[in-house]
Amino acid sequence: MHTPLALTMGDPAGISGEITAAAWHALRSSDLSFMVLADPDWLGQYAPVQIIRAPAEADFAHAIPVLPVTLARAPTPGHPDTANAPAIIASIEHAVRLAQAREAGGVVTNPIAKSVLQSAGFPHPGHTEFVAALTGAAGHEIMMLACPLLRVVPVTIHVSLRMALAQLSTAGIVAAARTTHAALIRDFGIPAPRLAVAGLNPHAGEAGRMGSEEQTLIQPAIDVLRSEDIFVTGPHPPDTMFTESARQNYDAAICMYHDQALIPLKTLDVFGGVNVTLGLPIVRTSPDHGTAFDIAGRGLASPASLVAALRLAKEIAERREGR
Amino acid sequence: MHTPLALTMGDPAGISGEITAAAWHALRSSDLSFMVLADPDWLGQYAPVQIIRAPAEADFAHAIPVLPVTLARAPTPGHPDTANAPAIIASIEHAVRLAQAREAGGVVTNPIAKSVLQSAGFPHPGHTEFVAALTGAAGHEIMMLACPLLRVVPVTIHVSLRMALAQLSTAGIVAAARTTHAALIRDFGIPAPRLAVAGLNPHAGEAGRMGSEEQTLIQPAIDVLRSEDIFVTGPHPPDTMFTESARQNYDAAICMYHDQALIPLKTLDVFGGVNVTLGLPIVRTSPDHGTAFDIAGRGLASPASLVAALRLAKEIAERREGR
Repeated sequence: MHTPLALTMGDPAGISGEITAAAWHALRSSDLSFMVLADPDWLGQYAPVQIIRAPAEADFAHAIPVLPVTLARAPTPGHPDTANAPAIIASIEHAVRLAQAREAGGVVTNPIAKSVLQSAGFPHPGHTEFVAALTGAAGHEIMMLACPLLRVVPVTIHVSLRMALAQLSTAGIVAAARTTHAALIRDFGIPAPRLAVAGLNPHAGEAGRMGSEEQTLIQPAIDVLRSEDIFVTGPHPPDTMFTESARQNYDAAICMYHDQALIPLKTLDVFGGVNVTLGLPIVRTSPDHGTAFDIAGRGLASPASLVAALRLAKEIAERREGR
Repeated sequence: MHTPLALTMGDPAGISGEITAAAWHALRSSDLSFMVLADPDWLGQYAPVQIIRAPAEADFAHAIPVLPVTLARAPTPGHPDTANAPAIIASIEHAVRLAQAREAGGVVTNPIAKSVLQSAGFPHPGHTEFVAALTGAAGHEIMMLACPLLRVVPVTIHVSLRMALAQLSTAGIVAAARTTHAALIRDFGIPAPRLAVAGLNPHAGEAGRMGSEEQTLIQPAIDVLRSEDIFVTGPHPPDTMFTESARQNYDAAICMYHDQALIPLKTLDVFGGVNVTLGLPIVRTSPDHGTAFDIAGRGLASPASLVAALRLAKEIAERREGR
């Protein structure tokens, strides 16, 4: 039996209650278990819950184990309420502390709405940066999106495209690639990882005719990585590097901006994608979708990405424990 | 019997000879016919050719009809030769003249290498702009990429990403969408086209938190288009608008830059993509790949995109002729 995973509440006005219940149904008879940091009155509307005071009490096969985090107001599906922001944040903090104390194998986060938390004073751009700050790894966190067909790592993330161009640097590409390389070995069990680095411009700049960043920023990063004996190819024309045959040649694609990474991933697999934070002392994954307020409470949400996130967190946790 | 299509030579050191031969084999017994503007000594190495002086002489079922364009030097596969640039250019000019004179149903262009032509003084960024100039439509040409699963139209095209941000304008989005809307009706037979306009930034800017172009440039374009009774949705988060379910909601996606359009298209369908130039007085399509000098002459190239380009050109030509 592995150490149970800690699953956060997410925004309770979104789809997190229903997908958590569906994930529990899908996994209750498996060798995977999790506990949820949530308000039991809320989660109990979706599935049977077992209120626990410590992870050791959990009986995952019969109900969802819940470590209580009390909401200020009963949530209405589709209508986020900033009064509940403190409980949403507390759920994340509690999950991270459990993982740091090794009482949880890793943290899996249900979707939050940044705008709701920010209006309540939450200063972080998102989950990833918050978890990094809580674990003392701020600035080292790297976001990977993984699905069975593709792994992508955007070097610049949640900023405008204009800002991404301004932020892109050789050092940033090198750092993302180094962290990815180490994680592919340690967390994904790939002994000799192959990285593909994307160009920034159409056709990877066509030898400078359509942009120069390939020559001024990206090739120098590739040179540094090769000098460290990291296997890396590129800069690749972005439009042809995600085809089925191209994907056979690498274990992860290092991408220059959010949509260069996310468009191919979501086009290939909208439900199976998992967000993994690399570069943290703890294991952290999350489903690759948002709160989906528009369909919350209607039974339409797919738990596939949450189930994939839970499975991947367990897999990484077991590799780190050396099983 | 439809008016035969005019197929250009492309760069004869690339894969155009072999894919032209393979396309002829695939189509010789169909109701589609084409003639090639090429050097018969070169094309004759790949398939039987029939030298003709006028389209009416063509006997497509038995050999590839060729209107001769003489190369300066015999091409070596994989080794482009600027001495042949004038013939490559003449082939395109001749094909366009045939279409203008209605002796050809439309023009299909084999891939060229811009760098080869530019070193011989060719002033155009590519085929599309050259064909537009030849037909007096310069500045009105719009590039669409189409495959059975998706049609995309990039508003900015063969410029660096930095330049694309500088060039993006409300007027450009409106013009691309108007031309696309008209072409979907006239050329694709869709009576009430639905357009989806992409955002520029991650999550379409998240209400201004990650970029403002959605509010300053893209929404105003959508407002103009709606005032003209064009059905249009957006600005859509770029990463989720190409999923299978999202694609059911539109007939073409209007994209802000090259790779936003080309990444999903090529990820979905690397071989079936066709490049269609909208906004011209003549029909023009081309395969959605380059000269592939690296595999030229080795029998590895797929004719699938060229065959799709020929089929789509015939389809559009017949719709324009009102059949």
